[in-house]
Amino acid sequence: MYEELRKAVCDANIELQRQKLIIYSWGNVSGIDRSAGAVAIKPSGVTYDELTPDKMVLLDLDGNVIEGALRPSSDTPTHLELYRNFEAVGGICHTHSPGATMWAQSCREIPCFGTTGADYFYGSIPVTEVMTEDAIQNDYELNTGKVIVRRFAGIDPMKMPAVLVANHGPFTWGKTPAMAVESTVVLEQIATMALGTITINPNQGPISKALLDKHYLRKHGKNAYYGQGFPKAK
Amino acid sequence: MYEELRKAVCDANIELQRQKLIIYSWGNVSGIDRSAGAVAIKPSGVTYDELTPDKMVLLDLDGNVIEGALRPSSDTPTHLELYRNFEAVGGICHTHSPGATMWAQSCREIPCFGTTGADYFYGSIPVTEVMTEDAIQNDYELNTGKVIVRRFAGIDPMKMPAVLVANHGPFTWGKTPAMAVESTVVLEQIATMALGTITINPNQGPISKALLDKHYLRKHGKNAYYGQGFPKAK
Amino acid sequence: MYEELRKAVCDANIELQRQKLIIYSWGNVSGIDRSAGAVAIKPSGVTYDELTPDKMVLLDLDGNVIEGALRPSSDTPTHLELYRNFEAVGGICHTHSPGATMWAQSCREIPCFGTTGADYFYGSIPVTEVMTEDAIQNDYELNTGKVIVRRFAGIDPMKMPAVLVANHGPFTWGKTPAMAVESTVVLEQIATMALGTITINPNQGPISKALLDKHYLRKHGKNAYYGQGFPKAK
Amino acid sequence: MYEELRKAVCDANIELQRQKLIIYSWGNVSGIDRSAGAVAIKPSGVTYDELTPDKMVLLDLDGNVIEGALRPSSDTPTHLELYRNFEAVGGICHTHSPGATMWAQSCREIPCFGTTGADYFYGSIPVTEVMTEDAIQNDYELNTGKVIVRRFAGIDPMKMPAVLVANHGPFTWGKTPAMAVESTVVLEQIATMALGTITINPNQGPISKALLDKHYLRKHGKNAYYGQGFPKAK
Repeated sequence: MYEELRKAVCDANIELQRQKLIIYSWGNVSGIDRSAGAVAIKPSGVTYDELTPDKMVLLDLDGNVIEGALRPSSDTPTHLELYRNFEAVGGICHTHSPGATMWAQSCREIPCFGTTGADYFYGSIPVTEVMTEDAIQNDYELNTGKVIVRRFAGIDPMKMPAVLVANHGPFTWGKTPAMAVESTVVLEQIATMALGTITINPNQGPISKALLDKHYLRKHGKNAYYGQGFPKAK
Repeated sequence: MYEELRKAVCDANIELQRQKLIIYSWGNVSGIDRSAGAVAIKPSGVTYDELTPDKMVLLDLDGNVIEGALRPSSDTPTHLELYRNFEAVGGICHTHSPGATMWAQSCREIPCFGTTGADYFYGSIPVTEVMTEDAIQNDYELNTGKVIVRRFAGIDPMKMPAVLVANHGPFTWGKTPAMAVESTVVLEQIATMALGTITINPNQGPISKALLDKHYLRKHGKNAYYGQGFPKAK
Repeated sequence: MYEELRKAVCDANIELQRQKLIIYSWGNVSGIDRSAGAVAIKPSGVTYDELTPDKMVLLDLDGNVIEGALRPSSDTPTHLELYRNFEAVGGICHTHSPGATMWAQSCREIPCFGTTGADYFYGSIPVTEVMTEDAIQNDYELNTGKVIVRRFAGIDPMKMPAVLVANHGPFTWGKTPAMAVESTVVLEQIATMALGTITINPNQGPISKALLDKHYLRKHGKNAYYGQGFPKAK
Repeated sequence: MYEELRKAVCDANIELQRQKLIIYSWGNVSGIDRSAGAVAIKPSGVTYDELTPDKMVLLDLDGNVIEGALRPSSDTPTHLELYRNFEAVGGICHTHSPGATMWAQSCREIPCFGTTGADYFYGSIPVTEVMTEDAIQNDYELNTGKVIVRRFAGIDPMKMPAVLVANHGPFTWGKTPAMAVESTVVLEQIATMALGTITINPNQGPISKALLDKHYLRKHGKNAYYGQGFPKAK
């Protein structure tokens, strides 16, 4: 049971390492089986070389362990809060990938400076508010989820599958664990390029609404015409 | 038929990945057989690992598919516009390679700061105007080609085998698909070095006309003396 | 005798190269067997490809060679001074890793800009004072140790397992030689990210004491809850 | 005849590629047999994958070909001018390695910001004057050598085995072709770190004379004590 979910989550975690976006045991990917109400997530503090599907920890949406001998990622309450609030999300990824983390540490959103971002993210990558002392000291990981959810008031998380947690780093998501990882890979590229862009031109503004619409919607809209005839799941 | 063209285009696309200039299905290379009036191009949204010569899509210069089961790259109308206007071009390459895209996103040309660029590009790498809302909303990819062609009024594209599309990224070209890719590889190097140069010295100007001529022409002119006795095709 | 120590130190040196943090014979790792009063260290000027456990040089804490045909690292007096003063340290690592060295050369501490650093280092990475002419000309390597020790007045070296020697580069340490190397790897990541952060926002300040405590202590405190039930040795 | 020299030069050229400091056919390494008055150098425009010792071109110090079917590197007159003037030099290397070229393009010397540079180079890395139009148009490659030699008036090239040619890139040298390549590798590291250093602290000055002397001389002086008992050839 949950075999497919375990494997998808394990594979997505390992892909993070293959993409050189994590070192040691940093980062974690989870996935959800909505019909079963079960979330699978990487165990805490385990390095990627040791990961196998049977080591994934299974929990319900309230955080009760269903299966698994290991302790789940310490960031689990953040993942669960996102699953509870972003109902179309099927996988979540958290890393300290350097480019995105530079921006998160600066408490600055990443402006949509070009079509590379617009192909995946419908606008600038939002950054959360800085967390209060109280929110840090009590239920920190749950509150990390809450500041993300609060930042997404009025934003469709499926059109903006990434956020920067201020002073911390990125969380990304997607329809599946693999797509959550893809969001991280692309986020890292656009974060790195955005740093170069503001170095070249500190006054550069974001692209026009027309260009954002064109690129985002040619891949993701009803009338998408990128790819092989089937609009990419979004 | 078109077997050689298919293979040259497929190989050039795969070389892009080998050079680590693209991820996922980003980027595309095309080639043209001028005598047959046929263009081969990468299929849309297909990853580089899956590419084989028989998957290349063949079109005429008006965009009618001659051969191929897959949908061609969504950027095909840009490529065709360039082939129609730049008659010596035999191959075209489009990527979001990070260094060049940083400059394209900044809407700034890359000044010719050194002999590295002068060996390949006869001057600064031009950037297009920002596209109008109308040009974006109607025939976007064709209009992308048109802003490039307009920018090249008075410029010989064979002496300047690269352009930055503002807010977007680079297009490069050459006598063959392989040389179009080589232009991208070199462009990426000079874009990266130019970023460093303006960081060290924000007031640095381009090299002198004399130095530009010397380096460009010792490789590409009638009296070229670089290489093994046969001037490199330009 | 000392076989285990030799192997641990040799492995840690080789790991430095595997992590691409050194070139040629740069850098050195040592380890100590406190009960035997013996320190093992890399021989001077020997490249990493040639390293074997039997080439490690063994010394007592006064610098007398116990075993070993080769001359020990020229930085040995620095290591010994640290072992004499930081009693919980079991391994020390010195490199010129580029990100950390950029900060050391700038004579600036690396502010704790995010949770990535807070997971490992309890605050900003300190930088030593610039050494005096006299300290450089007489017993330079010993005095390098002394400026480090002086900088750590009032700081627990086990909570801050890294320092930048001004105009020079980083020294890191840990419970074991392997953990000293891990400190270097993490330091390099946070140094690189800190450079990006100040480029994005030159006025960015360090994270709050509450966030620093939360992240450092969830991994290292009495009530740590990161990992698999056993708090990581610190 | 010249077999050893051919092999040393070929190996050094290939090492440049292994170190990822060149792409395509960029860059060239030469070596000299002073007793025979013979210089071996990479052939022009040949890629590194094709290099074999028998393809090296042999010339006398006046530029007459002694052996070799291929045309020598177009930069040969620069190499010969350096050999004629820097009598202790046994090998020369020219690249467009990105970090060093950023500085060369900025027409700025690389200040000696730390001990990493001081271990190899006795001071800041000099940059030549910008070449005059006349010097570019007539005997350009020879004149490139001349501006380097002129810049080294009063500088011992064996204590400063590198130079930046303004608007162009680095030349380095050493006792042997292999050591010329090592100078390039190290130069690239310090150039990259110097860029980071001025980004962190634009007002950072070079290290003290005392620290420069200590590090340079502990590796290269009469009383050197780095390495295994035999001072490194300098």
